[in-house]
Order: sequence, then C-alpha cells, then structure tokens
Amino acid sequence: MSLTGTYEDDNIFAKILRGEIPAVKVYEDDVALAFMDLFPQAEGHTLVIPKVPARNFLEFPGDYLGSYMQKVQKVAKAVTAATSPDGVVVMQFNGAPAGQTVFHLHFHIIPRKEGESMKGHGQSSKADPAELEKLAEKIRAAF
Amino acid sequence: MSLTGTYEDDNIFAKILRGEIPAVKVYEDDVALAFMDLFPQAEGHTLVIPKVPARNFLEFPGDYLGSYMQKVQKVAKAVTAATSPDGVVVMQFNGAPAGQTVFHLHFHIIPRKEGESMKGHGQSSKADPAELEKLAEKIRAAF
Repeated sequence: MSLTGTYEDDNIFAKILRGEIPAVKVYEDDVALAFMDLFPQAEGHTLVIPKVPARNFLEFPGDYLGSYMQKVQKVAKAVTAATSPDGVVVMQFNGAPAGQTVFHLHFHIIPRKEGESMKGHGQSSKADPAELEKLAEKIRAAF
Repeated sequence: MSLTGTYEDDNIFAKILRGEIPAVKVYEDDVALAFMDLFPQAEGHTLVIPKVPARNFLEFPGDYLGSYMQKVQKVAKAVTAATSPDGVVVMQFNGAPAGQTVFHLHFHIIPRKEGESMKGHGQSSKADPAELEKLAEKIRAAF
C-alpha cells in the first residue's frame, strides 16, 4: 500500500468501529475509539482511531484534527496515569514503508520504562488476552 | 528529566523561538514554527514546535491542540511534497526515557524511503548546513 490511495472500508479498524470484530476497548465517544494493541511494543500500548474515515494523518480532514487530537491526548493521559511509565512515545505511521499496517489513521501510545527497550513495530508477539483486559481495566478507571 | 516537571525557559527550542539561536526554518506563523532537525534520522527530518510553551504532548493545553496539529499536518504535507518519500513517520516523545531530549513539545516528521532504514533517535550525525538549507528551500516552496 502506498502513501496515497483510496480509503478501504474493509480494513480491520473499520471493522472494529462497526463492531464486526472485537477489540479490548478503553475509551469511546463520538469522535474516537481507543483500544489495546494486540501486538504491544510495550505494556500498555494503546491505539486511538478517529471515527472519521481517513487512511492516514496526511489525508485526515483538518477541521476534525482538534477534536481527534484532544482524544489522543486524553487517552495518553489515562494510559500514563494507569501504567505510571517513565516516558510515553506517541507515534503515527503514514504508508507501509513507514511501518503502517492498517490503513485507517491511528496514533500509537506506548508507555516506556527506564532501561526497558521498546519492541520493534511488527516484531512483538501477540498479547495474552487476559493480560490485555487487566491493563484495559486499569486504563478505563483512569479517565 | 522526568515525565513531569516545570517548563524551563532556557531550553534550546525556546531560544530558537526567541531568535537567540539560529535554526534552518521552513515555516512560521502565530501558532507554530517548523525547522530542520540538525541530527536528521532521515533526509528531510523536520520538527514542528508550538509557540505556546509546554514540556510535552501530555501537558499541552487542549484548547490549542487543534491549531497546533493543523500546523503539524501542514508541515508534514509540505515535507512530503518536497521530498517525495514512500512513507512518513510522525513521532513525539514525552520524557527522557521515551527519547525526549529537548523539553519543549515537538513533533518529528521523518520521510521514509522503501528499503532505507531510519537512523535511531540520538544516533544520527550532524547534518551538513548547506544540505539542510537546500532541503529547507524545497520544503518552503511546497507550502
């Protein structure tokens, strides 16, 4: 998938938004949905996606950026409060060569601990569902 | 420097905003300033900082997020148009353990080429000033 293209309705995040496939959700409102990354690069790795369909950050309609990024920040604060990290990485990939694997805009929120290295994107293993749910509960409680 | 703390007026981006030290600028308005990273992780690596002082994304006032992120997007589009990459990474670090080295909020915009690996943050060498200026000229022309 290249940097430009058409938004495809059958991407997995669109399916999660429509409730066709499950996700371990931590936050949802009219603007955005946040859920645990199934392949976390670090404990607490959370994704925040907008409800407005867009392939990536470059193509996202500017008028909606404020409300969406406020939700990204809100989720980042809750993840931080819940996981007490030493740092937080906020990342977003545009295009497959940049590391994008799902073509619906998403910001990654990745808690970092001092001295613990972050796993590469696409190099982490699938999380234990029970562990993810436990983390999600803590994050939900932090809003 | 930890994840929380007080904004320090003598950080290098505050000095760049006040014009006390130079930067290879590509864009400036009331909201934000964008300039070339002196230690680029890839060709075209650009930083976008808000004029509102804040240590990081978590502490940035939510009311200003929309206008600031619109400028981050605007710069990302110009960098993309100027450098024709295969992908673009958008990154932001909160706290030293996450990779933050300057404690004034900044988003990194890093063009990616297929098959070219990105240098690690803090592992790249200082760019040739003439090369940076040439890139900046191309980016300025893309707004």
